[in-house]
Amino acid sequence: MTHPPRLKIKIQIHSGEEIAMGPGKADLLDAIREHGSISAAGRAMGMSYRRAWLLVDAMNRCWDEPLVHTAPGRAATSGARLTPLGDTVLAHYRSLQDGISQAANGADYDGLAGHLLPEPRASQKD
Amino acid sequence: MTHPPRLKIKIQIHSGEEIAMGPGKADLLDAIREHGSISAAGRAMGMSYRRAWLLVDAMNRCWDEPLVHTAPGRAATSGARLTPLGDTVLAHYRSLQDGISQAANGADYDGLAGHLLPEPRASQKD
Repeated sequence: MTHPPRLKIKIQIHSGEEIAMGPGKADLLDAIREHGSISAAGRAMGMSYRRAWLLVDAMNRCWDEPLVHTAPGRAATSGARLTPLGDTVLAHYRSLQDGISQAANGADYDGLAGHLLPEPRASQKD
Repeated sequence: MTHPPRLKIKIQIHSGEEIAMGPGKADLLDAIREHGSISAAGRAMGMSYRRAWLLVDAMNRCWDEPLVHTAPGRAATSGARLTPLGDTVLAHYRSLQDGISQAANGADYDGLAGHLLPEPRASQKD
């Protein structure tokens, strides 16, 4: 039996109360780059067009320039691509994730992992 | 006007599908150590006794020994304290958080922070 990764590290970058970048938004940028439109990227991620559009809108409002450029036209079908700043922000975010993952593989994680059970015991209330 | 911290890093350690340790559980362990009971710790964190008890129960089932020892008696009012393993796990978790925060303060974060707005722009749909 396989287990999910035991250590999950979620990095969020905030602008005011809004999440300017996080794991889901970064994955959406990757998908937009791959698929060339917000609707196709959302579909590939199992996300509604509305949800994907809201995430792009939030990202585009949090930085000094937009991260995603959408061609004018019917919104759901027109193309979308990352701007130069979108490329830059995504690259820095991925690099931040890599650096932090490396920092996490140290003595403290080993000290925890040695006592962690692969599955929790049943609750006494079960 | 003050802004919340711009970079939030959430570390979760999983046992199967259960979260064995995370930011809220670590804060609850600190509060139990300070207040000496699950109910008082939960109250200090604005959490119901039931919610605090469920978090403690989950933690106690995920490691090879419990992290919190509760004295027998009426559950809501009897005392609780961290076990030696509870102290160890909390210390490693806090140290992991510190190491990761330092790893995050590098060139990649600077590359992001330079383009981040203090507050997002208004949505075009507003």
